[in-house]
Amino acid sequence: MTERLPSWRAGATRDAIIDYLDGLGEVPVDDRVAYFDNDGTLWCERPGYVQLDFFVDELQRRSADDPSIAERPEFDAVLRADPVAMGEVGMERIAVALAGLFDGETPDAFAAVVDDFIARYRHPELERPVDGLVYQPMLELLEELRSLEFTIGIVTGGGTEFVRRLSQQLYGVPPELVVGTLIGYEFARADDERPVLRRTVALMGHANEGAAKVTNIQTQLGRAPIVAGGNSGGDREMMEWATAGRHPGLAILVDHDDAEREYRYVGRAQTFEESETINDVAERLGWVTVSMARDWATVFPDA
Amino acid sequence: MTERLPSWRAGATRDAIIDYLDGLGEVPVDDRVAYFDNDGTLWCERPGYVQLDFFVDELQRRSADDPSIAERPEFDAVLRADPVAMGEVGMERIAVALAGLFDGETPDAFAAVVDDFIARYRHPELERPVDGLVYQPMLELLEELRSLEFTIGIVTGGGTEFVRRLSQQLYGVPPELVVGTLIGYEFARADDERPVLRRTVALMGHANEGAAKVTNIQTQLGRAPIVAGGNSGGDREMMEWATAGRHPGLAILVDHDDAEREYRYVGRAQTFEESETINDVAERLGWVTVSMARDWATVFPDA
Repeated sequence: MTERLPSWRAGATRDAIIDYLDGLGEVPVDDRVAYFDNDGTLWCERPGYVQLDFFVDELQRRSADDPSIAERPEFDAVLRADPVAMGEVGMERIAVALAGLFDGETPDAFAAVVDDFIARYRHPELERPVDGLVYQPMLELLEELRSLEFTIGIVTGGGTEFVRRLSQQLYGVPPELVVGTLIGYEFARADDERPVLRRTVALMGHANEGAAKVTNIQTQLGRAPIVAGGNSGGDREMMEWATAGRHPGLAILVDHDDAEREYRYVGRAQTFEESETINDVAERLGWVTVSMARDWATVFPDA
Repeated sequence: MTERLPSWRAGATRDAIIDYLDGLGEVPVDDRVAYFDNDGTLWCERPGYVQLDFFVDELQRRSADDPSIAERPEFDAVLRADPVAMGEVGMERIAVALAGLFDGETPDAFAAVVDDFIARYRHPELERPVDGLVYQPMLELLEELRSLEFTIGIVTGGGTEFVRRLSQQLYGVPPELVVGTLIGYEFARADDERPVLRRTVALMGHANEGAAKVTNIQTQLGRAPIVAGGNSGGDREMMEWATAGRHPGLAILVDHDDAEREYRYVGRAQTFEESETINDVAERLGWVTVSMARDWATVFPDA
């Protein structure tokens, strides 16, 4: 018999997950739904988000052609990777400016730029390509869930279209099961009258964090999860939602405490609404907290 | 060998569909995506939309308890099924008022009301339950597409949550692959702090018709179709979109010309933007037009 969750060390965390999965007997397949955050939950988000590296890469390419681009304060702060300057400009203004880089592009054109970046990308410190940045134990958990006929989705604060270019390849999750922060589109017609979609700079709704993850799950996916995984305050409401339904739920918090193999996060952010860290929330609500250092025998897949 | 599309009569229409499917050889599975309109394309929409019957049923139940409900002009027009009064009040005002019937309800509570209605419902003229109102030839087409590894979605002008309660049972389509007209939700907390979702009366974006079907496909599903089916001007842009990509596309228009077994639509609506019927558009753009009277040996499944 193949060992289940082989990259998870034996112990209370692994036992809690396997006990939960083994107890699903009466939950109908239609209700077997699991959603996971992406950055810091399914793959590495430090020292910076991969999507931010994508924008920096695009800015570098464009400013090589047109140096005046780097004069814009939003882009200057990002290109210099200067957290103080980024804080002064404001992340929201920066996000809008970055999204504006692709204003008017078609979905296919944007996808081609992402694909080109992904093919070239290596993590600045781990020197791994994108498929080497996913967490091997989480891939095994997805596999376990699939063997139990779960529908698996990704509910991310990142850009929906960026993550959709990776979700099938990295996690076996099709585009319609990716819910992130969404840019709007405009329907237009080409000179020959054929329909064309073009990206706008307008955000649809709010950034997909916190309570927005729950409302966006309902509107875009239509089913509540019974399993949810996250790693930050932005995942709190989604994880609570997974344990608030009529079936027993499982909320899994990934705790980054492994300075040797990945990153040890210090000064953990408070959740948005309360002066309580997400780890404190997890303990109070009886979630399963995964210590990367203690619970994972392997962090990343073999090269 | 089992006959393919057995409820389709031999002829040019059936040949065109089978020729298209047989020619898909080099199209990657990830690009095999088909979307269908629901009302009038996958199931019967006459003499009135099933969803409108649902609202009438709900109004009748509520006005039995509280007759003053019927005094509201929007509800009075609907309860009397009076097209002139409905036109005077305006369909948009009526739609908002009907959606308001469920203001503040949870997704589960709304689902229970829909399920109860569906269990009792019989078509007023055909006297069939909902699973007898789907078109047998279209079910066979979905089956053919599935055997070719297509991802199948429903892109409807109807209410997303209403159609999601039926899509798995009727068509094998899961909730996340249903895109319709969307009501927003509010995230709240119960007295015990558990998260709760409540319906609002705010429409998210536009009614899912015309160009909105294309932009909503991109934002909510993320992939363009290569096969699309519809029956009205509201499906035009989605069907054009299916034939505007890098792979050959197939657009299928269902023409209701069968007064004997279903309905013969007279005074076909012009498309929204041009003084051209959807049948004229289909002919001009080389779509496959399905004559229900000529091309379908069977319309509805056996009881």
